[in-house]
Amino acid sequence: MDTRVKTATLFDLRSWSAGCLDRVERALERWVTAEAPAGLDHGAPAELVEAMRYAVLDGGKRLRPLLVLAACEAVQGNEGAAMRAACATELIHAYSLVHDDMPCMDNDILRRGKPTVHVKFGEATALLAGDALQALAFELLTPEDATFPAAMQAQLCRLLARAAGSAGMAGGQAIDLASVGERLSERQLRDMHELKTGALLQGSVMMGAACGNLIQAEKAALENYGAAMGLAFQVVDDILDVTSDSATLGKTAGKDALQDKPTYVSILGLERSRAHAQELLARALAALDGSGLSHDRTQALRALADMVVNRAH
Amino acid sequence: MDTRVKTATLFDLRSWSAGCLDRVERALERWVTAEAPAGLDHGAPAELVEAMRYAVLDGGKRLRPLLVLAACEAVQGNEGAAMRAACATELIHAYSLVHDDMPCMDNDILRRGKPTVHVKFGEATALLAGDALQALAFELLTPEDATFPAAMQAQLCRLLARAAGSAGMAGGQAIDLASVGERLSERQLRDMHELKTGALLQGSVMMGAACGNLIQAEKAALENYGAAMGLAFQVVDDILDVTSDSATLGKTAGKDALQDKPTYVSILGLERSRAHAQELLARALAALDGSGLSHDRTQALRALADMVVNRAH
Repeated sequence: MDTRVKTATLFDLRSWSAGCLDRVERALERWVTAEAPAGLDHGAPAELVEAMRYAVLDGGKRLRPLLVLAACEAVQGNEGAAMRAACATELIHAYSLVHDDMPCMDNDILRRGKPTVHVKFGEATALLAGDALQALAFELLTPEDATFPAAMQAQLCRLLARAAGSAGMAGGQAIDLASVGERLSERQLRDMHELKTGALLQGSVMMGAACGNLIQAEKAALENYGAAMGLAFQVVDDILDVTSDSATLGKTAGKDALQDKPTYVSILGLERSRAHAQELLARALAALDGSGLSHDRTQALRALADMVVNRAH
Repeated sequence: MDTRVKTATLFDLRSWSAGCLDRVERALERWVTAEAPAGLDHGAPAELVEAMRYAVLDGGKRLRPLLVLAACEAVQGNEGAAMRAACATELIHAYSLVHDDMPCMDNDILRRGKPTVHVKFGEATALLAGDALQALAFELLTPEDATFPAAMQAQLCRLLARAAGSAGMAGGQAIDLASVGERLSERQLRDMHELKTGALLQGSVMMGAACGNLIQAEKAALENYGAAMGLAFQVVDDILDVTSDSATLGKTAGKDALQDKPTYVSILGLERSRAHAQELLARALAALDGSGLSHDRTQALRALADMVVNRAH
């Protein structure tokens, strides 16, 4: 029997991702630059931009950009807007890693198998590179050429600012800091992760969705998908921190236990954490089933949720 | 002779500023908060917000907000939008001070007469508070209630992102870092300051202007005003660092010389620096004269430029 026909009807995440990532990498390469933006006299100083590029280019799973593009596909949204939104989420993620790795935070020297930004460029440059990456994210979302509507630009800025700020990612990191050595309940741990990682992952989904026109039921379904998938990501991160090694992860393994950080594994144990991740995957897929969005168009979102939960690094 | 009639026809900057600052303080007080934004489950963690409030509230000249509001007056723009823009510029300024004061940057322990944020809250919280303040600035510019047009929201985000980023403030700080102990030409020093301080000051003017409808000639004139005034601010800052004391400045005086930083005073000398500041003031006022905007409506901008150059701290 020729299985190729059957295979072709399955969604091929690997090939879909490769196409997206190729476009994302080229866009980031073009946008994280020392060239002066149109209308400005000055470009950016070369060393700062070098540190920004080091932090962003050629590394990472690019999960957030993929979520943006997959959600945009689900709603058949504006692809140009989605590419900018995809890159903006990655810039925010990258800046958070740069700052998170600094000595006053996690003090990590290895990231994606390379020296961290402050190790390579010094702490002051790392601090500024992170700051500049955050600003660049919002610059990307507001192109002067109006290739997509101002209302969409404003909505994308709104979603990203909330996801990144004190009631989102930065807030979650603050709770994370305060929780070292503390005993958290599962509820408290979930609250922390909903901010720290969940907000930007869910925000990525909603930014992709904001590139199209959504009815309320579709929006609510994608929010639920994003929430479940975002939390699943963190549960699996906690599992991998225990079960994997640094070479596979591309970052220091076993760090959570070493730093006495509360994790899903430390609270629920390994087996219940694994079961919880599978439950969250089921919840994310159920949200899409009930969304009213066509199964075909949500294939990338489905495959990404599955990848998040069943990944090895 | 009764001078009161004559006095009343002069623009009273003190009273104009007091009215503006009262509204700005109340707005900041309301917007830098731990409450969950509409539509979000989570508020921000209390300690992080406390550090953000400490960094922002009750301190500083609020020059950037005043420039936004004065420019909005000049173009008779949308006041609600201008108040958000005013607060957003101050949040960006405040975050830059928090990060700038950290040990890996200027390592300063005194700011506005109070311990710096990292001294009071620890370095990790200072880093995150700065990051969250930047995000909050963009959140302020994109209110969900659409009290001002989406095109204005997007334009304000665009201007702020550029002014704050690698081709603006953060870029200028990177050049500043790299220039410690270096001999700069006046041209190089000017380039550095045009980014480090000038970009956000000029950006504040242009954000205020973006709250109204401008013709091209008015826009160009306000850009010239903003550029001259922004540079004047830095020249005077360099002068005050030499001629004033810490108590008057509310920050450590004599710091530039101590850190061997190039300044206008070190390059031009004190007298030529003073003359240069007056030239820049004249240039700023001339730009307004040639703007086509009515003299009446630009009185606040004129008085602010005068105050920037002739201030004692």
